[in-house]
Amino acid sequence: MTSLMIQSSTHDYEVILKAGARRELANYIDESYRSILIISDDKVAQFYLEDVVQSLKENHKVHTSIIPSGESSKSMAQYEKLLDDCIDAQLDRKSLIIALGGGMVGDLAGFVASTYLRGIDFIQMPTTILAHDSSVGGKVAINHKKGKNMIGSFYNPVMVIYDTETLSTLSEEEIRSGYGEVIKHALLCDEEWTNELFQLSLPSLTTDQLTSDLTRGIRVKADIVEKDEKEQGLRRHLNLGHTLAHAIEAELGYGKITHGEAVAIGISFTLQLSRSKLTSNLPVIDYVNWMKENKYPVQKLQDLKPELLVERMKWDKKAVQQNIHYVLLTNIGSPCVMPVSEGELKEELKRFFEEVILT
Amino acid sequence: MTSLMIQSSTHDYEVILKAGARRELANYIDESYRSILIISDDKVAQFYLEDVVQSLKENHKVHTSIIPSGESSKSMAQYEKLLDDCIDAQLDRKSLIIALGGGMVGDLAGFVASTYLRGIDFIQMPTTILAHDSSVGGKVAINHKKGKNMIGSFYNPVMVIYDTETLSTLSEEEIRSGYGEVIKHALLCDEEWTNELFQLSLPSLTTDQLTSDLTRGIRVKADIVEKDEKEQGLRRHLNLGHTLAHAIEAELGYGKITHGEAVAIGISFTLQLSRSKLTSNLPVIDYVNWMKENKYPVQKLQDLKPELLVERMKWDKKAVQQNIHYVLLTNIGSPCVMPVSEGELKEELKRFFEEVILT
Repeated sequence: MTSLMIQSSTHDYEVILKAGARRELANYIDESYRSILIISDDKVAQFYLEDVVQSLKENHKVHTSIIPSGESSKSMAQYEKLLDDCIDAQLDRKSLIIALGGGMVGDLAGFVASTYLRGIDFIQMPTTILAHDSSVGGKVAINHKKGKNMIGSFYNPVMVIYDTETLSTLSEEEIRSGYGEVIKHALLCDEEWTNELFQLSLPSLTTDQLTSDLTRGIRVKADIVEKDEKEQGLRRHLNLGHTLAHAIEAELGYGKITHGEAVAIGISFTLQLSRSKLTSNLPVIDYVNWMKENKYPVQKLQDLKPELLVERMKWDKKAVQQNIHYVLLTNIGSPCVMPVSEGELKEELKRFFEEVILT
Repeated sequence: MTSLMIQSSTHDYEVILKAGARRELANYIDESYRSILIISDDKVAQFYLEDVVQSLKENHKVHTSIIPSGESSKSMAQYEKLLDDCIDAQLDRKSLIIALGGGMVGDLAGFVASTYLRGIDFIQMPTTILAHDSSVGGKVAINHKKGKNMIGSFYNPVMVIYDTETLSTLSEEEIRSGYGEVIKHALLCDEEWTNELFQLSLPSLTTDQLTSDLTRGIRVKADIVEKDEKEQGLRRHLNLGHTLAHAIEAELGYGKITHGEAVAIGISFTLQLSRSKLTSNLPVIDYVNWMKENKYPVQKLQDLKPELLVERMKWDKKAVQQNIHYVLLTNIGSPCVMPVSEGELKEELKRFFEEVILT
C-alpha cells in the first residue's frame, strides 16, 4: 500500500493506492457514516460496483446511483437527477458520497457533494489513470453548453482510495489518455522522470511502473495545489497543454477524443510555442515521436482549422478579459505563464499543423 | 456611516450601513472589476436598479439580470438562467456579481457566484430588514421541491453594502418579517435589548432605531458565524425558531407567509417548549402579546395540523438521521440544542395551538 497526505485549506486528506482496496473499504471508511450514496457510471459499475457495495453494507446503509458513461453526463440534467437521488436516499449532513469512476464521475459527484445541504463529505475512488489528476486538488464541476467545467466548486474529498486493480480493465485509449496527464506532471517538475517516460511503450506497461507513475504524478499535483488551492497563480501551471486541449475537444465535439489524448497533443504545441517564444531547447521532436509511437490520435487534427481553435481558446475560463494566457516551459521543470496575442497564436498553430504534427 | 468587519475562513469583509450608498458605489467598489452583473428582482429593480447602474457605469461594464420577485424564484430553473446570463455577459474570474434585493436575491445570486467558474466575487446589497440576517455569514442556496435551501454553498461576499434608504419602501408585512430575525438575534444574546424590543411598535419605527437594531443584529450574527462558519455547533443557535418556521412555510405553501413572520411564530413555540423542558422563566406571554400588537399573522396557524408540522420538522436538513434537534433557551441570551422526541413535540405543539397562540 502507498499512502500520501494532501493538505488543503479546509482539511488534510489521505490518498491510498492499494490493489484490491475496493474489497476492504471497512479498513478505510469511518463507521460513523450511516448512509452512503455510491455514484458510478454504467461501464465502471458492471465491473466494480458490487464489490464496493459488499464491502460497505455491513457497517452502512448503502445507496447507489448509476449514470451513463461519457462526458455528456457532466451536465446540469444529471446534476439535478443526482440531487434528487440524494434526497430520495435521505442523505443528511452526516452521510457520505463515494465517486466510483473516472474523472467525469468524480467531477460530477464531487459537485453534487459540494452543494447538497451546502456540502457533505465525499470520497474519490478513481478507476482510471487520468483521474489521478482530477481526484486530487478539489476541483469539481459540470459542463455548460458554452464550455467545459464552467459550473463548479473548489471542494476537497475526505479521502482518495485508488484500487490499482481497477485499472486492469482500461482500454488502450484510456491508458493513453491517462498518460497525457502523467507526462504533463513529469514535464512540470522532473527532467529525469520525463526522459524515463519517453522510453515507455504503453502496451508493455507493468503494474509496478504504473503505480510508481501514478504516485509521482499525484505528488506533483499535490505539491502545486497545496501552495495554490484556488488557482490564483502557481496552480495555473497545471493547465499546461490544456488551452489547446479544451479547444480541440470542443471543436471535435465532446467525446470524439479523450481528454488526456487532447492534453498530450496540446502539450506538443506548448513545447513548440515555448521554443519560439522563449528560445528554449525543448525536445519537441522526441515528444512528438513518443506520441506517435504510442498511437496518440494526432491525425484527428486534420479536420480542424487553426483559426477556429484560437477562437475557442479566447473563450476559455482561464482567459482574463479574453486575453490568452499560455502556460509555457522555459525548460523541463520550469513552467511560466505568458500572454500570447491572437495573431501570434494563429500563426504558430498553422506552422505547428503543417510542419510538426501532421507531417 | 456605520461599518462592521466580519471574519471568515477565506477572507474578512466589511458591512457598510449608509443612507444613499447606492448612489455612491464608486466609493466602495474596487475599480479593477471590469465587468459587473447586477442581479435583482422586478420589485426592487423598479425602485433602485437605475441608481445602482448609474453609480457604476463610469468605472465598469455593467450588466443586469432581473428575476421575478418571490421565494419561488429560488429555483433550479432561475439558477440555470442566471448562469446562462453570466456566460452571455462573458463574466470572467475577475468579474463581480452584485445581489441587489432581499434574502431570496442574495441567496440565489450568491449561489450563482459561488459556482460560476468555481466561484467569483460577489457583493450583497440587501434591501430588506430580513436580509440583515441572510446577507452576513455566507450561506447561499436554492430550494428543492422537497425542502428549502437544500442545494447551496458556504460562500462569503467580499462586501455587504446596506443602503438604509432602500428600507423606506418596505411594506408593513416586510418590516414585521425583518423584525422576526431581529428579535431572534436579541433573544440569543441580550436581555436588555430584548426588553427594549418588547416596547417597540413597528408602525412608529424611526430610521435611527432601525439602523441601530440592524447593526446590533448583524453583530450578533457575525459573532456566531465567526466562531462556527460551517455550522458544526454554535451556529445552530441561529436556527432559533426556524424548525417550526420552515414547517409552517412548507405546510402553508411557500409565499403564503413571510419567512420572518414564520420565524417570529416559531420563536413563540420555542419559548413555550423551553419553559416545559428546561423549567426556565421565559416571557412567553410578553412575547406573544408583542407579536399580536404588531399584527404577526398567528391566525394562519388555524389551517395547520400539529401532526403534519411535526412530520415536516423530521425532514429538516438540520435533522441528524431524522432525530429532531431543537434550539431552546435556558434564559434570554443562553441558547442550547436538545433532542426532542416526536411524541413530545406533537403534544407540546397541540397545547401551544390550543392554549397559547390561537386563544
